[in-house]
Amino acid sequence: MPTIIDIAAKLGVSKGTVSKALNNSSDISETLRKKVVETAVEMGYEKNRVRRDRAQKLCIIVENMSCKNESDFGYEIVMGFKKLALPAGWDVDIVEMTKEDQLAVSYDMFMMQNEYKGAFILGFALMDPWMEELKTSRTPAVLYDNYILENPAVSYIGINNEEGVNLAVSYLKDLGHTRIGYLGGAMESYVMRTRYYAYFRSMEYHGLPAAEDLTGYSYHISECTQKYLPVLLKKKVTAILCCHDALAHAVLNHCLELGCRVPGDISIIGFDDAPFSAYTTPPLTTVRQDRGALGRCGYYALSSLLNHTSISSLLLRAELIKRQSAGPVRTWELPQKSILTGTDAARPVSAGRTAAGTSQ
Amino acid sequence: MPTIIDIAAKLGVSKGTVSKALNNSSDISETLRKKVVETAVEMGYEKNRVRRDRAQKLCIIVENMSCKNESDFGYEIVMGFKKLALPAGWDVDIVEMTKEDQLAVSYDMFMMQNEYKGAFILGFALMDPWMEELKTSRTPAVLYDNYILENPAVSYIGINNEEGVNLAVSYLKDLGHTRIGYLGGAMESYVMRTRYYAYFRSMEYHGLPAAEDLTGYSYHISECTQKYLPVLLKKKVTAILCCHDALAHAVLNHCLELGCRVPGDISIIGFDDAPFSAYTTPPLTTVRQDRGALGRCGYYALSSLLNHTSISSLLLRAELIKRQSAGPVRTWELPQKSILTGTDAARPVSAGRTAAGTSQ
Repeated sequence: MPTIIDIAAKLGVSKGTVSKALNNSSDISETLRKKVVETAVEMGYEKNRVRRDRAQKLCIIVENMSCKNESDFGYEIVMGFKKLALPAGWDVDIVEMTKEDQLAVSYDMFMMQNEYKGAFILGFALMDPWMEELKTSRTPAVLYDNYILENPAVSYIGINNEEGVNLAVSYLKDLGHTRIGYLGGAMESYVMRTRYYAYFRSMEYHGLPAAEDLTGYSYHISECTQKYLPVLLKKKVTAILCCHDALAHAVLNHCLELGCRVPGDISIIGFDDAPFSAYTTPPLTTVRQDRGALGRCGYYALSSLLNHTSISSLLLRAELIKRQSAGPVRTWELPQKSILTGTDAARPVSAGRTAAGTSQ
Repeated sequence: MPTIIDIAAKLGVSKGTVSKALNNSSDISETLRKKVVETAVEMGYEKNRVRRDRAQKLCIIVENMSCKNESDFGYEIVMGFKKLALPAGWDVDIVEMTKEDQLAVSYDMFMMQNEYKGAFILGFALMDPWMEELKTSRTPAVLYDNYILENPAVSYIGINNEEGVNLAVSYLKDLGHTRIGYLGGAMESYVMRTRYYAYFRSMEYHGLPAAEDLTGYSYHISECTQKYLPVLLKKKVTAILCCHDALAHAVLNHCLELGCRVPGDISIIGFDDAPFSAYTTPPLTTVRQDRGALGRCGYYALSSLLNHTSISSLLLRAELIKRQSAGPVRTWELPQKSILTGTDAARPVSAGRTAAGTSQ
């Protein structure tokens, strides 16, 4: 077990400098602090060594995600992780994290000060301050839905989003759909980018037309439904794939408000199989992530890192959960000129439906 | 535990038909046999149920790869797998397999007849007969270096070849190389294709020129060295990345025969860190696959499948092992017209070398 003296000797600085760096003292440059902390991590230094007989600690760092209640998206992920970590003798802390928290302290420093041996990180966006540090940090971290190139101390776990999008497009094609739109979330998210580009690749793979004007994306669900959904309907899409279930639910409701029946006039497929998605009206067809398995794989990847086996990526299979929000394609009436130039959504007409329209 | 009678009832055929199908009898159509075997697998049917108190069995199916001796490429992979499987109570058989063997019996039938619960499959090429069956089989299989789209009963494990190629190109660029060639293996192999295309992407990523005429590939090492190596040298490459260490070793020797010093005149990087690669002259710089970890991850993926958690892909980090076959770039003299049109290799000239040339 290295001491402050060993670290000082290795870096050719004084013991006091190392101590200041490790105690977050303000009268030391950021560059030197970073150097000291990195060296301490690499040498296996631990603060408060007198307490090393206690259980060792891991943390689950959470941002942009709830995980406290069963109805929260992150709940089963956290449970899956804990179910393996606790019997293996680890203490596991859940730490909620904001961008401001990340700016206040470096990742390595945070981990060392709290004596965490490794982190399972959920919900980070690409621009999160610690994402930059994770490119070079040597403190083991497993990222859910984020990929860091080549750093052997960091692993990426998630589902195979490419396959997930492909399952949805393939299913819609089998139902007769050819004009399939896509509504997505913020492109500042690695997984949102991945699903967006996967849509284009999958459409091309299936020989279906994909163009940017059949898509829309925004961090704000309201922008997707109010700005992009009418455009997609005007472009005569008969199905829309949404990047997550909350968006799919909003799109579903907005379609109903616009007088489009789901799935009679338009099919909607979500992503994630969030806990609420079986309870929407109609229940959402969606691409499932097995969240319990994601948590277990997160622990497996982290314990592998702690045992010097470095996983670059571990991706689970996606599964299409077929409920009622997607169905066979219906034909559209030829668009009226007024519709193409106006602001109202195009009006789909179902086969076998009277001119006046009847609800199912 | 379902019986032959259950299977017959489910399929609406006679008990005798099911028995014939499961015993590989010749007087039954291939279509029906396939249907029966698939149904039996899905229902969890086991032959010879009286023996179910014995240890349960897994198999490692091996083709195009040796794994018996420590110097064999597959040895550590098999050991890594067994080190986890045996303590968990599994018997593990090693089964050598040829294309002819695969044509003689279907994968599902082979697994059922031998009472294997799952397979770890090493060394298959894309055109292997069982690769087609693995697209739809429900018998758990983990493939090393092969990816099957979307089948939840099959997982892909390997290293991140994209990162591996990138590590090599990045290192060569740092050494001053800009003209980097690539020599590859048979494109009938998933991993050979992956590495080949990764070379183009990595060169583009680093802003370096990549063109097909800076590359060559063949199943036969001799074709790579005799046909493509002289072309690459004539194109004034200063470094060559090879898709595996056996090829790198052959290229190294052929360079020396042609009077090129390695790494003085040309740098060579291999792939895999095969057991012999530290013993070549000069020792090979190469992209390492941690074979013991691959075996352990293979078992993890297979036991996950057996527990209904389906991994799509599990990729380990690659690691660049820096030995002596790659070094700083040397300048080349301007090519003579005769060299450009002739059949001899271009002659690199090292900085600070006499016209007559001296060996190091």
